[in-house]
Amino acid sequence: MKISNIDFAKGDGLIPVIVQDVNTKEVLTLAYTNKESLELTQKTGNSWFWSRSRNKLWMKGEESGNVQKVKEILVDCDSDAIIYLVEPSGPACHTGDRACFHNQLEK
Amino acid sequence: MKISNIDFAKGDGLIPVIVQDVNTKEVLTLAYTNKESLELTQKTGNSWFWSRSRNKLWMKGEESGNVQKVKEILVDCDSDAIIYLVEPSGPACHTGDRACFHNQLEK
Repeated sequence: MKISNIDFAKGDGLIPVIVQDVNTKEVLTLAYTNKESLELTQKTGNSWFWSRSRNKLWMKGEESGNVQKVKEILVDCDSDAIIYLVEPSGPACHTGDRACFHNQLEK
Repeated sequence: MKISNIDFAKGDGLIPVIVQDVNTKEVLTLAYTNKESLELTQKTGNSWFWSRSRNKLWMKGEESGNVQKVKEILVDCDSDAIIYLVEPSGPACHTGDRACFHNQLEK
């Protein structure tokens, strides 16, 4: 599977990226990538994304230093969602938490 | 955190759902939910979604029988992405694979 096989059209050029810790399997973050940030991820080995709120490419850790080394990238059966399996060097969440999913949904 | 706190507006009424095996931590599927399917998930204890391709609500397993029991729902720091932690009763993927992420991205 190559980047050219990925279906970016369905999401207006973006696909969701599940960022998962390669060792603990904890899901750290859900973010988005376009073709360019995915190419940057493959080229550099660090996790790159597209920020929907800031409308720009960003590398995780570019400000905080908490970069994520991407060990493997997995693509789903519809080629419209991917997983970055990463080794984090610090918290994934901007709140300082290890992961972004720290709220439980109540009834 | 309640359903009313979730930000459905950013994704035109939909948010991405990471479906993760509560025991193995394997990521099974990336799907989407709207407010209604999330309410059905809470009410029934089975995983419900919104199908973007078929434009309808669907319960995982409604045809295959491979329902997913949702043990916990986690919400991220931006309230615009969630995780269903599930106990699957069969393969998550329509291909018959345990999970949908069975392709490795190559350079």
